[in-house]
Amino acid sequence: MNRKILYLSQEDVRNVGLSMAEIIDAVERGFVEMANGRVEMPPKPGIHPGQGGDNFIHAMPAYIPAMKSAGIKWVSGYPENPQKGLPYIMGLVILNDATTGIPLSIMDCSWITGMRTAAASAVSAKYLARKESSTIGILACGFQGHTNLESMSVIFPLKKVIAFDPNKENREKFAKFASNKLGLQTEIVDDPKKAVTGCDIVVTSGPILKVPHETIKAGWLDEGTFISCVDFDSYFSRDALKEASKWTTDNLEQYNHYKDTVGYFKSCPEVYAELGELVTGKKVGRENDKEKNFAANLGLAMEDMAVAPLIFKKALEKGIGVWLPM
Amino acid sequence: MNRKILYLSQEDVRNVGLSMAEIIDAVERGFVEMANGRVEMPPKPGIHPGQGGDNFIHAMPAYIPAMKSAGIKWVSGYPENPQKGLPYIMGLVILNDATTGIPLSIMDCSWITGMRTAAASAVSAKYLARKESSTIGILACGFQGHTNLESMSVIFPLKKVIAFDPNKENREKFAKFASNKLGLQTEIVDDPKKAVTGCDIVVTSGPILKVPHETIKAGWLDEGTFISCVDFDSYFSRDALKEASKWTTDNLEQYNHYKDTVGYFKSCPEVYAELGELVTGKKVGRENDKEKNFAANLGLAMEDMAVAPLIFKKALEKGIGVWLPM
Repeated sequence: MNRKILYLSQEDVRNVGLSMAEIIDAVERGFVEMANGRVEMPPKPGIHPGQGGDNFIHAMPAYIPAMKSAGIKWVSGYPENPQKGLPYIMGLVILNDATTGIPLSIMDCSWITGMRTAAASAVSAKYLARKESSTIGILACGFQGHTNLESMSVIFPLKKVIAFDPNKENREKFAKFASNKLGLQTEIVDDPKKAVTGCDIVVTSGPILKVPHETIKAGWLDEGTFISCVDFDSYFSRDALKEASKWTTDNLEQYNHYKDTVGYFKSCPEVYAELGELVTGKKVGRENDKEKNFAANLGLAMEDMAVAPLIFKKALEKGIGVWLPM
Repeated sequence: MNRKILYLSQEDVRNVGLSMAEIIDAVERGFVEMANGRVEMPPKPGIHPGQGGDNFIHAMPAYIPAMKSAGIKWVSGYPENPQKGLPYIMGLVILNDATTGIPLSIMDCSWITGMRTAAASAVSAKYLARKESSTIGILACGFQGHTNLESMSVIFPLKKVIAFDPNKENREKFAKFASNKLGLQTEIVDDPKKAVTGCDIVVTSGPILKVPHETIKAGWLDEGTFISCVDFDSYFSRDALKEASKWTTDNLEQYNHYKDTVGYFKSCPEVYAELGELVTGKKVGRENDKEKNFAANLGLAMEDMAVAPLIFKKALEKGIGVWLPM
């Protein structure tokens, strides 16, 4: 019984040095596997502690044979946490040896979740945005604002970012990141419309709300724009959504569950394609320079489990983490 | 970000010194909560790595507000592992702070699983066996044979154990445990019938099989016996099962899933009661000294999450475990 398990803290996970480009590649390969029916990903059940609130802790298991990846993310979302100085999202990924079931590694899920979500946005954009997209609007400059800007900068020749966030601290942190780390021309605006009109790509990355605030109105979007709705349909007026040429998601089954049972995506357009269908060419992506194409990705266990083995491998190579007795 | 998480290895979990009596008490209280609709326990999804085999890794989340317990067990079962010198069952429990979602502790699940399964047997026996039960038969002397003997010895004035196991090593280890640790008169038999006829309580704890081996025949069971089928219906001929006065389980929904979808419990008796109904007096347990009463418990996430907070508390008190940065 001398088996050991590798624990990777939030800092360890960050420090293994997996790049956004590598994550985008892994997530895209995961979508290929999924579209070909080669991923086992059962529905994600959860528990909901607290009185009638929106707290959740979700179990997200997935098995991707081609990546020798089997495991689970156990992730909590407590909307009132930030008021207590705690993160909204917390949790762990467990990576198992698919051939024996043995847990190989336990790793903090925060960084992985942020990065793989942004990577999925970028994969959607690869098929739905104009290749020469150079101006991006980011509405809400939290962690997802940062990671989505980074992932888009991997795929597109971005020059300029226009960012909107009611929160001053978020805005300032974001501006530093965009100009210093990514070298982009950075404009912070007080009017959300300015982060939409004139942009080739728009990312909405605010809080996910069951009753959308519908800030973005009809007529704000230019022709040819791609929009990644990281916060689901929260940012869009129903009239603005009518402008959608192609409305897509990462997983139709989960989308329909969110729509019909949980109550998101009311009066949203019909889903044109799943991301896996775009990636494998089963459905065509952008067809001209005028389409206004949307991705409303939900976040899948497959994405976490596409990334986890890469983290584990790099951690082994670099000797990062704490080995624990089983 | 100075949050820490307590890791407890298999040895740590054992060493915190939680007694079987405490575990039985916790599991019974858990059944009270469940019977009163105060436990959130979604269906357990899983993944199934390997080619068409019986490998599984299951997610078992549960939330028990009265015990301030929220968390998950992520547990693998690989039937071919023992041939490789690896355990059949392996996995981890994650215990979360129900008020913030923060993971408090990660602990090995093997000991907890073994102990809580045996505790559930004992809770069933408390309501379905004769109070003066003193002779117990154990068929298959693996880990569950050991723990079930121990749990029954907490509830009943056991004097003698009659044990059957085709595996010599198991038998010898078990005999030592029964006589030295529990101080019981111990008889090892080559004929399975001798571990059934003449016993007040019978525990079948072999491997769980979709096609039962049906070793125990009609007429073997004495009147007044209680049987805990830890290995489901694997040990019983269908004729022997017809002798059942009361056939019970820990969770009807899960039982029906196993029966109708997975394929266990074919031609078994109708379920008389769920364990929670017995514990809360919603259904009456044993009514006379002649009944042959059965429990076919499946193992519930609730049971793990009833035990996990007690392990965590004792570990804190005794300073056991490794504190990890989040």
